[in-house]
Amino acid sequence: MLLTLADYEVAANDALDSAIASFLADGPGSSRAVHRNRDAFQRILINPRRFVDVGRVSTTTTVLGREVSCPVLIAPTGLQQLAHPDGELATARAAARVGTVAPAAALATYPVERIVEESRGAPVWFQLYDYGRKQVDALLARAEAAHCSAICVTVDVPRRARMREHDRRNGFRPTSRVPLAHFDGSAPPEVRPVLLPTLERICATTSLPVVVKGVLRTEDAHLAVGAGAAGIIVSNHGGRESGSAPAAIDALPEIVDAVGGRAEVFLDGGVRTGDDVVKALALGARAVLIGRPSWWGLAVAGEDGVADVLSILREELVETLAHAGCADVADLDRGFVRTEGPQ
Amino acid sequence: MLLTLADYEVAANDALDSAIASFLADGPGSSRAVHRNRDAFQRILINPRRFVDVGRVSTTTTVLGREVSCPVLIAPTGLQQLAHPDGELATARAAARVGTVAPAAALATYPVERIVEESRGAPVWFQLYDYGRKQVDALLARAEAAHCSAICVTVDVPRRARMREHDRRNGFRPTSRVPLAHFDGSAPPEVRPVLLPTLERICATTSLPVVVKGVLRTEDAHLAVGAGAAGIIVSNHGGRESGSAPAAIDALPEIVDAVGGRAEVFLDGGVRTGDDVVKALALGARAVLIGRPSWWGLAVAGEDGVADVLSILREELVETLAHAGCADVADLDRGFVRTEGPQ
Amino acid sequence: MLLTLADYEVAANDALDSAIASFLADGPGSSRAVHRNRDAFQRILINPRRFVDVGRVSTTTTVLGREVSCPVLIAPTGLQQLAHPDGELATARAAARVGTVAPAAALATYPVERIVEESRGAPVWFQLYDYGRKQVDALLARAEAAHCSAICVTVDVPRRARMREHDRRNGFRPTSRVPLAHFDGSAPPEVRPVLLPTLERICATTSLPVVVKGVLRTEDAHLAVGAGAAGIIVSNHGGRESGSAPAAIDALPEIVDAVGGRAEVFLDGGVRTGDDVVKALALGARAVLIGRPSWWGLAVAGEDGVADVLSILREELVETLAHAGCADVADLDRGFVRTEGPQ
Amino acid sequence: MLLTLADYEVAANDALDSAIASFLADGPGSSRAVHRNRDAFQRILINPRRFVDVGRVSTTTTVLGREVSCPVLIAPTGLQQLAHPDGELATARAAARVGTVAPAAALATYPVERIVEESRGAPVWFQLYDYGRKQVDALLARAEAAHCSAICVTVDVPRRARMREHDRRNGFRPTSRVPLAHFDGSAPPEVRPVLLPTLERICATTSLPVVVKGVLRTEDAHLAVGAGAAGIIVSNHGGRESGSAPAAIDALPEIVDAVGGRAEVFLDGGVRTGDDVVKALALGARAVLIGRPSWWGLAVAGEDGVADVLSILREELVETLAHAGCADVADLDRGFVRTEGPQ
Repeated sequence: MLLTLADYEVAANDALDSAIASFLADGPGSSRAVHRNRDAFQRILINPRRFVDVGRVSTTTTVLGREVSCPVLIAPTGLQQLAHPDGELATARAAARVGTVAPAAALATYPVERIVEESRGAPVWFQLYDYGRKQVDALLARAEAAHCSAICVTVDVPRRARMREHDRRNGFRPTSRVPLAHFDGSAPPEVRPVLLPTLERICATTSLPVVVKGVLRTEDAHLAVGAGAAGIIVSNHGGRESGSAPAAIDALPEIVDAVGGRAEVFLDGGVRTGDDVVKALALGARAVLIGRPSWWGLAVAGEDGVADVLSILREELVETLAHAGCADVADLDRGFVRTEGPQ
Repeated sequence: MLLTLADYEVAANDALDSAIASFLADGPGSSRAVHRNRDAFQRILINPRRFVDVGRVSTTTTVLGREVSCPVLIAPTGLQQLAHPDGELATARAAARVGTVAPAAALATYPVERIVEESRGAPVWFQLYDYGRKQVDALLARAEAAHCSAICVTVDVPRRARMREHDRRNGFRPTSRVPLAHFDGSAPPEVRPVLLPTLERICATTSLPVVVKGVLRTEDAHLAVGAGAAGIIVSNHGGRESGSAPAAIDALPEIVDAVGGRAEVFLDGGVRTGDDVVKALALGARAVLIGRPSWWGLAVAGEDGVADVLSILREELVETLAHAGCADVADLDRGFVRTEGPQ
Repeated sequence: MLLTLADYEVAANDALDSAIASFLADGPGSSRAVHRNRDAFQRILINPRRFVDVGRVSTTTTVLGREVSCPVLIAPTGLQQLAHPDGELATARAAARVGTVAPAAALATYPVERIVEESRGAPVWFQLYDYGRKQVDALLARAEAAHCSAICVTVDVPRRARMREHDRRNGFRPTSRVPLAHFDGSAPPEVRPVLLPTLERICATTSLPVVVKGVLRTEDAHLAVGAGAAGIIVSNHGGRESGSAPAAIDALPEIVDAVGGRAEVFLDGGVRTGDDVVKALALGARAVLIGRPSWWGLAVAGEDGVADVLSILREELVETLAHAGCADVADLDRGFVRTEGPQ
Repeated sequence: MLLTLADYEVAANDALDSAIASFLADGPGSSRAVHRNRDAFQRILINPRRFVDVGRVSTTTTVLGREVSCPVLIAPTGLQQLAHPDGELATARAAARVGTVAPAAALATYPVERIVEESRGAPVWFQLYDYGRKQVDALLARAEAAHCSAICVTVDVPRRARMREHDRRNGFRPTSRVPLAHFDGSAPPEVRPVLLPTLERICATTSLPVVVKGVLRTEDAHLAVGAGAAGIIVSNHGGRESGSAPAAIDALPEIVDAVGGRAEVFLDGGVRTGDDVVKALALGARAVLIGRPSWWGLAVAGEDGVADVLSILREELVETLAHAGCADVADLDRGFVRTEGPQ
């Protein structure tokens, strides 16, 4: 029975080739940061209010000025044909059905134009790394022309990583298996560290709001906002870049405080249940992003699978809000969370 | 050998149909809040006094002005014919034998009048949700006419929950298996969030003392007392409503402090031993409630089983008090508890 | 190979009848306080000094004015024929060989006179409960006449406990198996709580120094010293009386501070290695007592086994002191201990 | 596949005789301090910076004025023929290939002159214990004549230890298996505690910089610097001397603070990955030392194995620095580390 995202995880691991399943699930350092993202959520408890009229509960909010039905966005990931032949197109259709943000990654296996088309009016965020000024400018222009609604600059992959340990053990080279829609040939261009002038230039160049993904230190949140970012995604890249990275949810509150409302702050990493969404929003996130869970849905049942994953999360979110005594996601604040033990 | 409540748990799980055992035992979020209730008790230690005359130890106290032989009450639960054909009647007889409070829940499978009759003078608390003004008023009047001694308003189930995950996996719909004595048909009426005016009206309507069950935040304790509640039950509903709920015993001290003697404060959730009772009382509870353990007794041996569960707890309580150097439950204070490690 | 006390524990469990092994090893509440005593030691680390001349290391000290070769005493336990036919006599001979304190418990299976005789000049502490004034006075007089060197009053067993859970499961009644040397018949007299006037009277009656065993709260340490005690044994009775008792070593520092040098403070519970001895002494204990380990030695090889257990501990203590950079047990202070993590 | 040091550990345990593997791996007290060294690293997280130009990352630094390609030195250990017939010569060649410090221990199985020869200009640290003035002076003179670059005085083995528990169980006496190059016969001379005048004399006698290995308390760091030490190695001897020793990395920050730049501070114990190196340097270490990992390399493939172990660490270090947003090891500071949980 596919009742929870955990059920989808199991089913996806069954459906996927084991090297792809490992590529998706694992991280360096014995996947410690992958698990840390989850463990940190489980150390946070929900402090429920009583005597609140939760007969109707609203999960609608806006992100970067666009309404979404639910504060759960799909994180930008490329190479989605590894999970399903419909790849990013299926994901976009599912996001559109549920009414939330779909991603179009520079490393997508379908072009951004088709992704936007399949998203049927739902917002699409175009994600890219720094591939050098020429490539970046071309991608920005293409995303704008394709009517994307935001640009997402990922700043936590400063260079082409060595193949990850588990991929080396499996002899798995992900980009050799699927086409890259935005680049010629099968290898993407070299990645460079995103420097501040680069970010400033991107913010100045594009008319779209810019979201910076991969911030874990308050100093960098200040820098990103100063450079013109409209959004900050607190993320450790799903625990895929460093086994020693802090859990995203643990870094969230201090970054929310540092940003002080000057930009929207999002949380990416470890969200698997409606409770997790409430915890992240109570700690100041505008919305959360899900990465692996969208792949699980994709692997299990394509568009329907992704849509079901989103629907499960939204239904759980409604239940959690009702039990928490919160009628609207906008009302969540830090009073709704606490830690284990007497306070 | 049935020496402890843990023995009864094992025996009950043997005796019950597995779907009923799961319905009884499990909670959402991998039963995390169920286990949290227990784990929190085990982090609290008892700091024993010496040189105290514990040749005789008294466990007698009063709750809402009524004497009980032991500060262990039976928590209100309905549907008790799921565990034994005598259901709530067996529970009431057992409570009467031991001299403590028996519950009559709105979702009971025997009517409150028969429950009160079987309780032979022991106090009966009538428990209800907000089923709408008409239903509530009718139930309050009926409980009063039946000579219940208190009304218990459960405030932590703001709406009919989706079927719980484990019940969905088991295809188990508890209300379809047993009769509901206080409602027509097999489905109970829709539940609404208990709002403050509703609570105020209940307190103003009934001549019985009102106990509010399901408080975890100090603000809500203040509100409940302000609305006229005579008692507050600190509870996370046995971990059955949210896997992210704090342990009841962890929320207790701050709520005791917030109430400041304006109402009696009770603890519900995770009590399994005499040590647990001492810890809860030392932290300020007037008495504790047991839910699942009364079902274990019921499932194993009906009335005799419930009475034995209560007797075991009382005997353990006497032992624990003697070892703690406390001759009377009224003498317990926070000096009797400590945490692990040097202080 | 019997290299450590852990080896002796395994060998003793092999040698003993399983009900006796359980009687010896287990405690109430799933033996939580038994394990807590050990776990607490393992959370304490030793902070070693360098540049200290530890070419020779001294373990000699005095307890209640009597020199011992090593600050490890044998805790008073009765019924020792359960472990070996030579029982307390073997234990006394072993203590004498090593040069430390031997116990003579009121519940011993050999009379105090023979125990003192076998101790060949080593100090013998006579231990008793409050069996009523007449019995106590008779026992005190007998201990004095037998040339015991101290009286140990155990204050943490305020009444005849119910048979412990594990003994009930095993159908094991320890006093029915072996003779009691100081009482007529097989059942010892009823135990009463030791009250302060009783302790004062004992201190005033006997010419021997009085040690109070079983203190865990600072208030009680003050009371005991005020009543005339020359020694305080911080102990949770080996975790045998309550599963919720704090670890003895965790209670030690605050009691040492409370006593402030007015009496000697001893630590009983969980000592298994030379490291443990150093930790207890660094935290202010004058010496430690071992209970179960002396039974392990007894069960494995009678007198030789107990002597070997004591020798192993002393050799380990010498090693630990050398590595800690401490040439004499008298030099240990709190600077030698720390906890996990950066300080 | 030998991708990580953990792979080398597994392969070495396969390659080595089990008694030698145990001699290498285990420590007293159930190897608790061995594991503590590792666990402590895993509690430290890396706080990555963004917007930093990590297109090129430098791992070059100096230790005691000598340039090394990477802040990973090989810890001084003797008896290396236990792992491979080429022993210390293979280790020296590997260090030279990578450009880092090689050790020559007093207990080496090849003479210091040959070790220096094989190190082809890379710095060699000569390590010794206090074997008495005559022996020490002879060894110092020999090391100087052999063109060693530093003297390492190990201060945490104050006397010939008893054979360790695991070696006793295995009947393993390490010095009986291999030749000692610097002493006549198979048994090394008796070890004495290094006293402060001895250290002062060594510092005054030799023209080489002196590094003191085995400091865990700030007082001793002050004493060592006062005596003339140019370097302090924070170490618990790989957890081989006491199961109760604090983790080296936990003691590091306070010692760095105490030394205040008057000497270089090194970290030895538990380093297995590039992340670990970054954590130690961020906490103030000038460089780290690896002990067991060099043996793993030696056991698996002699010189090539040790060189590969060093290369893996250096490659991992480059990756970690890039992800941490740090272009040069000299830029690491405490801002790059944090602990679990919200800060």
